[in-house]
Amino acid sequence: MNLLIVLAAFTALQGGIVKSPAKYVNPFIGTEKMGHTYPGATTPFGMVQLSPDTDTISYSINGVYNKDVYKYCAGYQYNDSTIVGFSHTHFSGTGHSDLGDILIMPTTGKLRLNPGTSHNHKDGFRSLFNHKTEKAEPGYYSVILNDYDIRAELTATTRVGIHKYTFPKSDESHIILDLVHGIYNYPGKNIWTHLRVENDSTITGYRQTNGWGRTRTQYFAIKFSKPFNNYGYKSFSGEQIYKGFWRKFNQEKNFPEMAAPQLRAFFDFKTNSDEEIVVKVALSPVSTRNALLNMEQEAPHSDFSRYKNEAFSLWEKELGKIEIEALNEEDLTNFYTSLYHSFIGTTVYMDVNGEYKGVDQNIHKAIGFTNYTTLSLWDTYRALHPLFNIIQQKRNSDIINSMLAHYDQSVHKMLPVWSHHANENWCMIGYHSVSLLADAMVKNIKGFDYEKALKASVTTAKNRYYDGLKEYIAKGFVPEDKSGNSVSKTLEYAYDDWAIAMMAERIGNVQVFNEFIIRSINYRNLFDKESGFMRPKLSDGSFKKEFDPLDTHGQGFIEGNAWNYSLYVPHHTYDLVKLMGGKKKFENYLDTLFTMHLPDRYFENTEDITREGIMGSYVHGNEPSHHIAYLYNITDNSWKGQKHIRNILETKYKAQTDGLSGNDDCGQMSAWYIFSSLGFYPVAPGSTTYYLGSPLVISATINLENGNTFEIKTKNQSVNNIYVKRVTLNGEKLISPYISHSDIMSGGVIMFEMSDKPH
Amino acid sequence: MNLLIVLAAFTALQGGIVKSPAKYVNPFIGTEKMGHTYPGATTPFGMVQLSPDTDTISYSINGVYNKDVYKYCAGYQYNDSTIVGFSHTHFSGTGHSDLGDILIMPTTGKLRLNPGTSHNHKDGFRSLFNHKTEKAEPGYYSVILNDYDIRAELTATTRVGIHKYTFPKSDESHIILDLVHGIYNYPGKNIWTHLRVENDSTITGYRQTNGWGRTRTQYFAIKFSKPFNNYGYKSFSGEQIYKGFWRKFNQEKNFPEMAAPQLRAFFDFKTNSDEEIVVKVALSPVSTRNALLNMEQEAPHSDFSRYKNEAFSLWEKELGKIEIEALNEEDLTNFYTSLYHSFIGTTVYMDVNGEYKGVDQNIHKAIGFTNYTTLSLWDTYRALHPLFNIIQQKRNSDIINSMLAHYDQSVHKMLPVWSHHANENWCMIGYHSVSLLADAMVKNIKGFDYEKALKASVTTAKNRYYDGLKEYIAKGFVPEDKSGNSVSKTLEYAYDDWAIAMMAERIGNVQVFNEFIIRSINYRNLFDKESGFMRPKLSDGSFKKEFDPLDTHGQGFIEGNAWNYSLYVPHHTYDLVKLMGGKKKFENYLDTLFTMHLPDRYFENTEDITREGIMGSYVHGNEPSHHIAYLYNITDNSWKGQKHIRNILETKYKAQTDGLSGNDDCGQMSAWYIFSSLGFYPVAPGSTTYYLGSPLVISATINLENGNTFEIKTKNQSVNNIYVKRVTLNGEKLISPYISHSDIMSGGVIMFEMSDKPH
Repeated sequence: MNLLIVLAAFTALQGGIVKSPAKYVNPFIGTEKMGHTYPGATTPFGMVQLSPDTDTISYSINGVYNKDVYKYCAGYQYNDSTIVGFSHTHFSGTGHSDLGDILIMPTTGKLRLNPGTSHNHKDGFRSLFNHKTEKAEPGYYSVILNDYDIRAELTATTRVGIHKYTFPKSDESHIILDLVHGIYNYPGKNIWTHLRVENDSTITGYRQTNGWGRTRTQYFAIKFSKPFNNYGYKSFSGEQIYKGFWRKFNQEKNFPEMAAPQLRAFFDFKTNSDEEIVVKVALSPVSTRNALLNMEQEAPHSDFSRYKNEAFSLWEKELGKIEIEALNEEDLTNFYTSLYHSFIGTTVYMDVNGEYKGVDQNIHKAIGFTNYTTLSLWDTYRALHPLFNIIQQKRNSDIINSMLAHYDQSVHKMLPVWSHHANENWCMIGYHSVSLLADAMVKNIKGFDYEKALKASVTTAKNRYYDGLKEYIAKGFVPEDKSGNSVSKTLEYAYDDWAIAMMAERIGNVQVFNEFIIRSINYRNLFDKESGFMRPKLSDGSFKKEFDPLDTHGQGFIEGNAWNYSLYVPHHTYDLVKLMGGKKKFENYLDTLFTMHLPDRYFENTEDITREGIMGSYVHGNEPSHHIAYLYNITDNSWKGQKHIRNILETKYKAQTDGLSGNDDCGQMSAWYIFSSLGFYPVAPGSTTYYLGSPLVISATINLENGNTFEIKTKNQSVNNIYVKRVTLNGEKLISPYISHSDIMSGGVIMFEMSDKPH
Repeated sequence: MNLLIVLAAFTALQGGIVKSPAKYVNPFIGTEKMGHTYPGATTPFGMVQLSPDTDTISYSINGVYNKDVYKYCAGYQYNDSTIVGFSHTHFSGTGHSDLGDILIMPTTGKLRLNPGTSHNHKDGFRSLFNHKTEKAEPGYYSVILNDYDIRAELTATTRVGIHKYTFPKSDESHIILDLVHGIYNYPGKNIWTHLRVENDSTITGYRQTNGWGRTRTQYFAIKFSKPFNNYGYKSFSGEQIYKGFWRKFNQEKNFPEMAAPQLRAFFDFKTNSDEEIVVKVALSPVSTRNALLNMEQEAPHSDFSRYKNEAFSLWEKELGKIEIEALNEEDLTNFYTSLYHSFIGTTVYMDVNGEYKGVDQNIHKAIGFTNYTTLSLWDTYRALHPLFNIIQQKRNSDIINSMLAHYDQSVHKMLPVWSHHANENWCMIGYHSVSLLADAMVKNIKGFDYEKALKASVTTAKNRYYDGLKEYIAKGFVPEDKSGNSVSKTLEYAYDDWAIAMMAERIGNVQVFNEFIIRSINYRNLFDKESGFMRPKLSDGSFKKEFDPLDTHGQGFIEGNAWNYSLYVPHHTYDLVKLMGGKKKFENYLDTLFTMHLPDRYFENTEDITREGIMGSYVHGNEPSHHIAYLYNITDNSWKGQKHIRNILETKYKAQTDGLSGNDDCGQMSAWYIFSSLGFYPVAPGSTTYYLGSPLVISATINLENGNTFEIKTKNQSVNNIYVKRVTLNGEKLISPYISHSDIMSGGVIMFEMSDKPH
């Protein structure tokens, strides 16, 4: 494990609330191994994620999936020694990927238009770099490109990436614009690229790709602060047919219109020593015209430091929504980096004029809301969106409106499953959109149409061709012989159905409530009394014979084995306890889960978590277990949960580049950290109840959008005092380990008395 | 030569004006050999050209141009025996091609999703057909598909193609939607295709192609009058990457979202005997939403015969702009078919809401004009647009506004050269847009901005990287060693420059006039006194040594040899006569041109004209000669021109499937016929002067948009009386063989006294 090169200065303040939370964010956390975060510059929920990419490994080699590509979900791996360039779109923490659009790389000397390889960087335009020269903070990234002696600095507005390159003196300075580059690229992923040189310092164009987003187009506009002397391109997709009419021109040099599936362009400059060139890159999901409009409105000038300061201020404001006092600097860093990661997974997907591309490929105008994209819902319904329902209510309402627009545009008449950039990529299982809608409705989040939300949810949940749903509706479970991962699907559908019932209850729709509350107990159909686990069934109703509850693969589960998944009944926990044989047996089950030995062979094929993320057979790096430690609240020994929660907080999140024990998953891992640090967790989104755990903070103030504040206070908090002895809410003792959403929203104080002994 | 199977009934009327001109149109004329017209259904200037395609030959085989594809510029060759299906976009009469979008084919029996070959049609979905069952008239086409016993009928509105299929009884009736099919297709031409099944009778989608239009997307929406029972597709572009997430579904059957580079879809029906299914296909250059809007507004019902009757009425109205009395039925057919072909080359490119895609790839709204596309300007500036300046003034003004919008959107800041469907394809030479603008300005066509037109023209004519222009501007000629076809380019630039001077004069811009009137005499720089021909020069100013004035290839010319091209000084004809040694020598030159023998070897490599199109060395099938017969007016024996003109009218245009002696070229060949039949021709567009020839009609009435009528009358007109003895205009004898545009527009009568003897 590498210690972090750049650690935020610990200016604050045991015994005081942090005043500049953005200073505690370390964007390098998670950039090594499985975190899949990126270190580059972005604003809160920003459309631009401008970040260095350290490699360009192909998703497939001769049509066969190339496992090595997995490391590059965010384009950057901390242990790499070269940077290929700076691209403008990145997922944060995903376990599959796409994007990496519009790569820009400044170079000097002989022009090279291929990126080269990590083994032989001199062969291409990539450059060696050293972490010593690297700096990252919210909204800013900087590095020296050793091969060219160029300092690269990056910042961003919501829709515009701003580069500042400080060149050496050179008659051969270049800025390369690589439209071939992409994350999870493969031969044939690029469908079309297009470039226009509008004048001696302005370029427009787009990159259209196939891939995870099956039909995706990223439009852009670029302005250089200094006019280029010459420009040109090379096409990397074979010679153009119909070339006859093009003989009229030398297309490859100073011809202002370029189009082909695979283009790399260059722009030549003469630079003086320490000459700065600022490059502004505006994105748009709609058109080059809109990209220019976004540039005009968000980035009219070329003063890099002004953009940098504005981005930092935006972060200070957003991160200041929770002010904490921590036991030590690492906790502060983890907390604010988690909050930072919570605010960069879901991103604006709309131009300044309100236009965006819909999943129907038409251009729409968002009326009355901001359109968002990148909804990794299987992950983020659990804690991220519940967190937004406390500190980002307006944005969550906008996200929901974006989802309802997706539903309107979807030819399947389905809410999003995993959607990004006007595409449904269908990743993972369930229809967890309904959880978001339910959670927002029961928590009275305003700004969207509740009736429509319910209708969209019901329609989604009745799609007959989606992922085993037909059989699920007919039989009450997904048969493993009809649809793989059948137990995970059944359990998650049952939870989702409960969420729909909660929505129906919220608006008094008895018929839908009755229909879906019945579906919500379908988990019972897969509980195998004999083995004591949730277990796959076949179409004939019999349990599948071969069954290994430790294995994650081929057993009817996904990203979790039977030991973990059998606990996935977040909505009817008491019924689960009953199924499992009562409180004591249930507690024993939990005890075993956290302490048993999981042999390596069950682990080594799982690509998205690290060994360090495992406690017994409990896997924190994947989401299905995220609620489990809190289930001790329904046993007689909730202190065991408190112990595990504090343990996870302290050992599964480290202020190190490899500090995340699994993919951050668009902020879900981080949101778990935020909730748990504050002492409570939404075990079943769609309910207003939070399960209490054991806070890590000394104190915290949540500044709510309604003007109220909710304070978390502790007595005797310390690294060793991990057990909760007593809790009071607004001075009154809590008799059960739960609080409700209204307790938070009304403002007030929750006080945890801590102790080093179980209570 | 095949005689036409379907000949319009000769209901009218020697001695009377035709009352139903549309009945005389024969859409099959030009569908055999080199005419490159299509027989399908379209409305005047309609965005939809719905027509049968008889083959799908690839533009290239392993990257090498396949000459055979040339036959299929319009998708249909009369001698073929099978029909592949009915596609919605076709050029009329071009010598290079594209389009053929959205092919639909009804079949019965076993489902086949490949088109099969003409040698083995049973292998695919194509069908044998017989001309006996085929019928075509303006706005309507019909045929029986023998293999399936299906009658197919086609009609159209401006933006919607309407199919009516009469099926036999079958449990296995299919309608195939082929998005792979296209004209001038090749592997890799399709960039992307996309389909959504919106409900059981509605589909939307698009086809995106590379090719002649380098970046072209055709959106569509389809509605069936009967719901389909099942549907599905097959992808013809290899297996999809990222297929993992798609295992959730059987994508190939009844899955409503399909996307891949190469898709063919099918829709299954059960049909009763003689059951009719109406299929409506709306196009849009912008989006599927706009396609649906176009459908909603133009084709709300499914009454095929109503659409058919409306299309016919539109044609009656447009063709009625010139009413003629002819010597015989063939002349009537030729005249109205020519008028028909004049009105289908340039087409609406705009949705009902005014939106269209610009050459900058952005969506624009046409404010105050209708946007048109398919501007084969090298051809059509000569006679087609001058014709429009008489009988389609509003449309020509709209076309010019479309060209000025193109200029605004062009990154080259150039007016269109050869543009179609939001693309500049750069075909042929010159910048003849300026001729259109000049001709419209000197003829007082209203509705566009004259100042802007001049500015756009000057900017276009000063582009330094376009096709030898830099050298032309520097040296006064294009050197052959710098840019091929240099003589043709120099001569045409010189004419275009004169047109710009005329525009400048029209609005009093002395500076531009002076600059361009000097450029307009640049043809002098290439006249070689020694050989008596225009002849290529090299950069050093010397004439190129090797020179064969009979050869069209490699001599500095394009689509014409030195014999023809040396006469291309339409704007300074008297100066040309002087250059060539005076009137008598000039007349001898013309005489020789029309009578000399052109050995086969000079002809056999020219792909776009037929042997029959040649008179001596005069080639009517290509455009550079179109003004030549009229040049006899500047000799002392204009009767020689009259003889040739009548000869061309009678022998180069036949009411037969192979009746056109060359590509119709988007209506230019036809417009020559119209003008010449009426007795006058615009030798130099940009001037208000028409050269008189020898009319073929007995009489004609031109119904002008200003409410006036201009009548052409003859005395002693007959097949043998081809010489003009005397002409009066409004009763007054003309002393020279010219009339002016204002003579026509003021209304009046021109009377030609005919004779069988030269005058």
